[in-house]
Formats: sequence, C-alpha cells, structure tokens
Amino acid sequence: MLLFKLLVLPSFVHALWPIPHTLQTGTSLLKLSPTFDITLPSISKPPQDLLAAIAQTKTYLHTDKLQRLIVGRGAASSTGLQTARALPSLTLSLLNNATPHAIAVEAVRPIGMRNEGYTLSVPADGSPAVLTANSTLGLFRGLTTFGQLWYDLEGVTYSYEAPIKIAKDVPAFPYRGFMLDTARNFFPVADIKRTLDAMSWVKMSTFHWHAVDSQSFPLDILGFRELASKGAYSQSEIYTTADIQDIVSYAGARGIDVLVELDTPGHTASISSSHPEHIACPLSTPWPSFAAEPPSGQLRLASAATTTFTSSFIRALASTLPSTLFSTGGDEVNLNCYAKDAQTQMDLKASGKTLEQALSAFVGAVHKALGEVGKTPVVWEEMVLEHNITLSKDTVVMVWISSQHAGSVAAKNFRIVHAPSDYFYLDCGAGEWLGNNPSGNSWCDPFKTWQKSYTFDPLASLTTAQHALVLGGQQLLWTEQSSPENLDSIVWPRAASSAEVFWTGATLPDGTPRSAGLASALPRLHDLRYRMVRRGVRAIALQPHWCALRPGACDG
Amino acid sequence: MLLFKLLVLPSFVHALWPIPHTLQTGTSLLKLSPTFDITLPSISKPPQDLLAAIAQTKTYLHTDKLQRLIVGRGAASSTGLQTARALPSLTLSLLNNATPHAIAVEAVRPIGMRNEGYTLSVPADGSPAVLTANSTLGLFRGLTTFGQLWYDLEGVTYSYEAPIKIAKDVPAFPYRGFMLDTARNFFPVADIKRTLDAMSWVKMSTFHWHAVDSQSFPLDILGFRELASKGAYSQSEIYTTADIQDIVSYAGARGIDVLVELDTPGHTASISSSHPEHIACPLSTPWPSFAAEPPSGQLRLASAATTTFTSSFIRALASTLPSTLFSTGGDEVNLNCYAKDAQTQMDLKASGKTLEQALSAFVGAVHKALGEVGKTPVVWEEMVLEHNITLSKDTVVMVWISSQHAGSVAAKNFRIVHAPSDYFYLDCGAGEWLGNNPSGNSWCDPFKTWQKSYTFDPLASLTTAQHALVLGGQQLLWTEQSSPENLDSIVWPRAASSAEVFWTGATLPDGTPRSAGLASALPRLHDLRYRMVRRGVRAIALQPHWCALRPGACDG
Repeated sequence: MLLFKLLVLPSFVHALWPIPHTLQTGTSLLKLSPTFDITLPSISKPPQDLLAAIAQTKTYLHTDKLQRLIVGRGAASSTGLQTARALPSLTLSLLNNATPHAIAVEAVRPIGMRNEGYTLSVPADGSPAVLTANSTLGLFRGLTTFGQLWYDLEGVTYSYEAPIKIAKDVPAFPYRGFMLDTARNFFPVADIKRTLDAMSWVKMSTFHWHAVDSQSFPLDILGFRELASKGAYSQSEIYTTADIQDIVSYAGARGIDVLVELDTPGHTASISSSHPEHIACPLSTPWPSFAAEPPSGQLRLASAATTTFTSSFIRALASTLPSTLFSTGGDEVNLNCYAKDAQTQMDLKASGKTLEQALSAFVGAVHKALGEVGKTPVVWEEMVLEHNITLSKDTVVMVWISSQHAGSVAAKNFRIVHAPSDYFYLDCGAGEWLGNNPSGNSWCDPFKTWQKSYTFDPLASLTTAQHALVLGGQQLLWTEQSSPENLDSIVWPRAASSAEVFWTGATLPDGTPRSAGLASALPRLHDLRYRMVRRGVRAIALQPHWCALRPGACDG
Repeated sequence: MLLFKLLVLPSFVHALWPIPHTLQTGTSLLKLSPTFDITLPSISKPPQDLLAAIAQTKTYLHTDKLQRLIVGRGAASSTGLQTARALPSLTLSLLNNATPHAIAVEAVRPIGMRNEGYTLSVPADGSPAVLTANSTLGLFRGLTTFGQLWYDLEGVTYSYEAPIKIAKDVPAFPYRGFMLDTARNFFPVADIKRTLDAMSWVKMSTFHWHAVDSQSFPLDILGFRELASKGAYSQSEIYTTADIQDIVSYAGARGIDVLVELDTPGHTASISSSHPEHIACPLSTPWPSFAAEPPSGQLRLASAATTTFTSSFIRALASTLPSTLFSTGGDEVNLNCYAKDAQTQMDLKASGKTLEQALSAFVGAVHKALGEVGKTPVVWEEMVLEHNITLSKDTVVMVWISSQHAGSVAAKNFRIVHAPSDYFYLDCGAGEWLGNNPSGNSWCDPFKTWQKSYTFDPLASLTTAQHALVLGGQQLLWTEQSSPENLDSIVWPRAASSAEVFWTGATLPDGTPRSAGLASALPRLHDLRYRMVRRGVRAIALQPHWCALRPGACDG
C-alpha cells in the first residue's frame, strides 16, 4: 500500500491552483503566528483595493479552516506543530519603484500589457515571507497563492511543506476567462460577485458578460433605458447603471477585466419589445426556421437607422466601461430571417448591397463606433469563418463551434480566445431543454468534465508563428437550464480547469503533457473545491469524500 | 399567435403537481380573505402533526407569492380581483368518524394499507372550501393540493380558476419515493429535512435512505456504535440515534415513510474500519477486480460469526424504526472478492456450502432477524435475478439495472419498486468521476431528463395479473459527484417527474398516454419549480424564463 501511495502521490503542494510556473517546497512544518500580519513597508500610498485584498486574505487565513485531504486529516502533525516555527508576517513590495496603481487599473490594461507575475518566498525559519511583483496586480495574484498554502489542524493554520519558494510565477496567456449568460435566466448582482470572487481565487483575468440576448435585455443603458425597461424580464431583473459599475469595480479589485458582450445582429429579439422598428422576424414561428433557438429576432442590419441605433447604444454602454475589449457578438445570424423580412429586402434593394455587404457595413459601423471610445472589438467565430466581411486586424475572435476551428481563425491572422463547445461549454450534457421531447439530449452532449477541459491544448494545430495569436480561453455557461440555484454547482470547481490550462500553457510547467497531469491535478482540485465551499461557493464534490482523502485510489 | 396559444395551452390548473385524479375548474377569480383560516370543527383532538401541517400551509399561502407564469404575470386580473369574492376558510373533516391518528402513524402503515385519498372543493361564491378524507394522511395530501392552487398579484393571493372541485384524488401506487445515498458524500440533517419537505410537496410517500456504503458508515446504531465512530468520515459526519429519530419523525409528519437500507453483503468496506474480522477483500487493489467501484470490501457471508453480527446490527437499527420496510441491499456482490478471501474459502469448505448456498443462508438469517422485529425485507434485483437464493414471498424487489428487468422480477412473483437507471438515476450524465480519465463519461449516460422519466410506464411488459405486484417507484441520487452543494439542483424539479408518474399511473387521469402529456406537464412543472425556489429549495430552471412565461413556445 505504501509503494502504491508513493507512486501516485503528486509532488506538488496540494492546494495550489493554478500550479505556479516554478515551485520549490521543503518538508518542515510552519504555522502562522497568532500575530501574523501582512505588511507593505515600502509602499507609501497603497491603493484601497490592495488594502482590501490584504484584509480579505487575512480573513480567509482565519476562516478557511481547510484540513488536509488525507486520511487522518493531518493529525500526525499535531505534536510537531507544537514546536514548529511561526511565520510572523508576509511583506509585500513592488519592484523597480513601480507606482502602486489600483489593482483595478492594472487589471484593465490592454490585453497583453498586464503584469501579473510575482515571486513568493515563505521561509521555514520563522523569518518573514516575502512577496514581490512589478504591479499591484502581480501582488494580488501572489496574495491569492499565499492564501492557498495553508491548512488547519486543531485551530492552528499551518503548512507542512516549508520552506516554499516560487521564484517565478507568471501566466502563459493573458485571457483566462469565464462567460456567464444573464439573458436566458437572470442572475442577481450578488451571484455575479460571488462568481467573481471564485474566479479570482483561480487567477482568472476576464469576466465575459454575455449580458443580453433574445430572451431578455437586462442591461440599463443611459440614453436607451427603454431597452431594459421593456426588454428585461421584470423591473427587478435589470442591472442598473450603478449595478454595472459595481460589478466592474468589484471585478477590477479582484484582478478581473469585464468584457461585456451585446450580441448583434442576431440574438436580439428582446429589442423588439422597445424598438420593433429595428427587429426583423420577431418571435416568428415556427422558430427553427428563423433562429437557433426561440425566440427569433435580428437587428435590421441593412437599415441605416438600425445601424445608427445599434452603434449608438453600444457606444453609450462601452464608453462607461474601463475595459479595452467589447464584444459585438455575431454568432448564428439567420439568413432566412432577413430573406423573409420585407423591410430588410427593401433596404438591400435600395442600397444595392448583398446581405453579406450589408452585414459588413453594419459590423464596420458598430466597430467604428467602438473604436471612437477606445475599444477593441471581439466577435464570435462566424464573423470570420462564415461571413466574408471586413474586420479590423485587431479584432479578437472567439472560437466556439469546435476546437478544430482555431486553425482557420489563425490562418486569417486574427487573435483568438478559445471557447470551444467541445471542451469548455459547462451547460452540455444536461439534456434537451426544449419541451415535448422525451428522448432529447443537449446539442453538445456529453457533459464536459474537468478532466476533458484540462487536456485542452491551446496551441494545438497552430504554427509556431501563430502561437502569439492565442490570447487564452475560457469556460462558458449558457443558461437555458441554469439559474442562481445551480450557478455555483454547475460552474465550480469545473471552470477552474481552464484557469489552470491558460495560466500554465500547452504543458505543465515541468513540460508534462497536460493529459499526463490529471493524476496530480485532481488532489489540488479537491483542495480548491473544499476551500471554495468554506468560502461560501457551492462547488460540488468531484468524487466520494473517501477518494478525496486518498489521492490515486479512485483512478480508473 | 392567438390560435397558436389556444392550441398548446393546457387545460389543467398550472400549478398542481401531481395532477389529481379528477379535476373540474371554472373561470372565476377568487381571492383568499385577509382573515382566511383553516379549521377542523369536527375533529376534537387533532394530532399535533396535522396542526403543524395546517400552520405550514397557512404560512406558505402568505410567503409563496408565486406569480402566474404568463406574459404580464396575471396583471390583467388586477381590476377583477378588486371585486372578486373572498374565500373565508378551508374546513377539514374526516369521513366515517375516522380516528384522527397522527399523520406519521398513517404514513408508516404497511404499504398498500395507507389511505391517501381526499376530496377538495373550493367554491367560487365566497362559501368555505371543504377538504375531506378518510385519514389524516389524506387530509395532508389535500392540504398539499390546496397550497398549490394559489397565485400572487400585488399582494393578493388568488386563483383564476374557481370553482375548483377535486371529487376524487388518490394515488395509483403507494410507493412514490426518492433515494438518497448519504455514504459516498455526507448530507447534514438539515439537507435531508429540506429534501423531505420538497418530497412532501409532490406527495411522495417514501424516503429510501441508502445510509451506508463502502465509503463511509455514518449511522449510529445502539450497541454497535463502533461502526459509525470508526466508519464515518468524521465524528461530525454521523447521524446520531437522535438524528435518525428526528428524520423519521420529520418525514412521518409529512406523510413520508423512511425506508432505511443497510446494503449487504457487498458495499461494506466501511465496516472494516471497526470490524476487520468480518470483511473480505477490504480496500484490495486493483479495485476493479474486487468491486464495482472503490473501495472493495464485503461481509464474510459464509462466516457464522459475521452472519450473526450482521443480523444483530440490522435488527438493532430496524427495531428503532417505525417503517414496516427495511432494505438489506444485495446489489453488486463481487464473486472474485470471496474467491480470493482465505477465510471465506475456509468457511465454505467447513460448511460444505457453495457460495450461492452461503449467500442464501446469510440473507435468510438477516431477513429472519428483520422478521422478528416486524419488518418486510427489500432487496436490489440481483438477489432474485442473478442469484439462486430463497427469499420470503413478501420480499420487495427494487429493479435498478434496467427497466427491462421488471418483467423478470414479476415472473418470479415478487413485488416491485421501479428504480431503473435508464429512467430514474439522477446522477447519470455528469461525466466520469474516476480520476485520470480525460474522455470518460458516466456509466449510465446520458442525463435522465424529467421528460424521459415522465414517459416511464410502470406497467410496461407486465401481464394484467402482474400489475398488482407494482408498488411504485422512485428516482435516485447516488452521490459520487453530489454533495450538499448540488443536492437541490440535481434533484429538483426532476424528481417530481416520477412523483407524478406513480401518483397518476400508467396514463394520465384522462387516459392520455404519458408521452403525450409532456406539453401539458411542463407549465405545471415550471410552476412547481418556481414555487420550490420561493420555499427555499434550490430547484433549477428547466428553460429560459422567457419559455416558462409562454407555454408551448419552446417546444422542439
């Protein structure tokens, strides 16, 4: 039995997720001093959000009370802990006299320009731990790591692997995201904030907010308030402008950029509630002829008035957001909808444009408006793979239909965010949600396990020259069958899988292929999950607790 | 659009689940009087649990605040409600001078001897509503129905379909259950109680408590306390004898019988922690040679000492429980485990028995012990389909491997509880839980949707003479990948599906085949789900809210 254990027990510190770029650990016990503190002696004017992050870290150190996930829960260390050295403090410092900007400022710098790296040293001899970085964002990432180093035994917060040295930790990709659809079902601000907290614990950098869709328009936009007041499910299911700023600030303080998507020209039936004049084929039947799912409805992309209207409300929203990225969507444009819309046909005839030309002009106008407020456009893959339209070279393309399509996007020299349904769609596998179909399954069966997501290779089928096009990727929750009731449980800990993929890259830091890293990842993921539960996120059990206590004993 | 709606809108009162045996509704608005009360004028000494049920019903009438699931949420009734008649009270009475026993007493009568029927009349003219039944259990079922009749509009609790008359409601099958596995992962008592509440809302009659398994033994049994103190995950993850009685009482007061299962002789590795002498192949590797899942370990069924020990602790527990049913399990006995166990081979040799003969003697002894404390044994299907052992004729058999096996069990003339994995396993479809398998899926893929479960025919492939063998059925949650965090969301509202199947029978009350009833069932199930959320059960959205507001608009 002992041999068996030695073979399968990973050498990593269990609780770290994502695994750092470099990591050296020892074998000493080290406990947190009762007077443990986190200090910033060399930072004269620390930003408020950094101070808040420090306070939160200290709170977690007291409240996590995560016992080791081994048989006995670490009780064998009880005697040793009585005489173990105590860590008096963690000292944070910025390198190179860097200016201590707010984390929220660093988190929204143009993608690729953010400085998330840090170094961390936790000595075993009772001298202070040291965390250094080039930015407050790097310090935040390091604080997150520090908060994952500790276990609880009989009220003592301790590590059994001191000294711990992370000479360098830095993400492989800047975009490490999670997408939430708040249009099919509504999620209160508190649910989004709790999700942002959990995202920050796994060092995610981007919250892709698929805010509106054909089912509802819950986003209040100044100057266009009728969109939400008539398009939301109810007056209490609207994100007010204050809510939006609250979410953006909350995210920023946790190192997360908020990429808002207003999907166009398809997926816009909810706009017909306030502006029927701009929507083709609203709620037409039978819906499968007009849309990928009910209800149908698309912006009249050939209409000058609709183009101006769309550009205006997108610019109005985008101008209030700190992110440099903004998504105009572009998935699943239904051609029959436009073919059957008399107004669109008239507009096309009048302008002499084909539908593709009109689409190009429409997207171009909207993206031009975004450019005027300093935003880089993001689109779904169809805009470059299924349509022949002109897009600016800096456009970011999300690959969703299949992981196989990344190469085609790269061949067109666009930057890529991996969001493939065959690896990263969290909603797959929950059965057919359309009514009246007793034998239906979800369109993207089967369920995407954390194991499947974890084996994703961000650089597969790309040439070396194309590697630089990959910004990162994300797991996604479309909410046909989700609501606040299962948000945590369908997302966590699964979505942590891609967070590690895009932090560590195409292989694990030591060069291990990702698929060979599952055995060592699972114990860490268990630790993460139990810690999430302690922090109030309803992350589900991945295995029987018996297995979580015995790494390797429940491998297939 | 109007024609479309008329075609698809069901004629049922939306919120009723399960649908009553008979139902007549009108078209009048009726509101609850501000002084509305529930009275029992003819019951001189009402039992405490009936009074508590009445109090709970009155609370829900005030707190549900469920708006109609239609566009406008019923606002069109606003004016009409101002002048609508008010219902002053609901009067409960027992027919035939029946003795008002506690609901908990009625709920645990021998299966088939319970009286769950009731009649309910809610006049539209402002006269009192009347609920009658032959037992307090029937009154409880009727109260549950009454609590589902009402919607909220601007603070007014009302129905739009008065008068409502249920001349007869009675279940087709007495066993309408839900099974929870509390051994693979532990569920605190509060989670079980919340589950019992939700079960009662859909008139379920049986909580099948798969209490212990190879992973843990969380059940404290007087005289055998070492089983839990050494076999539970921790001292705080034990159901004390007080907890067990608390759960049983809580269930009984809600019309629910608690069928406890102590699975034997397989699935008993957790007993090896306290009694290694009774367990063959404990935690043997590689586990697939010794068990269906890790860890392996089975009671030494050929040992006289083990047989006595097993009979004793099962009798000790069963004697404390009011139910007449008790399950000794019997699934997935691994023959190789016994073949490799020297002790078992020695015992077999000494007795001159084959393994099958030893199994028969073992089960016979355990069931005899159960009989001595008045219990009827329940077993999994393998005990009659895969083994050639002698069982008493009153044994109840749970069919789980395939719905196709019910006929074989019936052919042997045993009573049946339908629990087939191909319809009713709530855990299917969540991916492989064993580690280190990136492409694995759950063994019983795909996910079992409510639609699939709803089309189950309890009498399929049985002869008319065999129909009487069907006691009912249940959905089940095995908890490899479940924990308190996703209990509600993986169970509800899906498990309500079988609750209606076994309340209404092989067809809907009007003779509609079940598969043709999906369209009318979905709006009612939405209502049930939204009501569950209002009552604190985290039941998930089955569709986008847009669809829930538009019956039929999101059919496939």
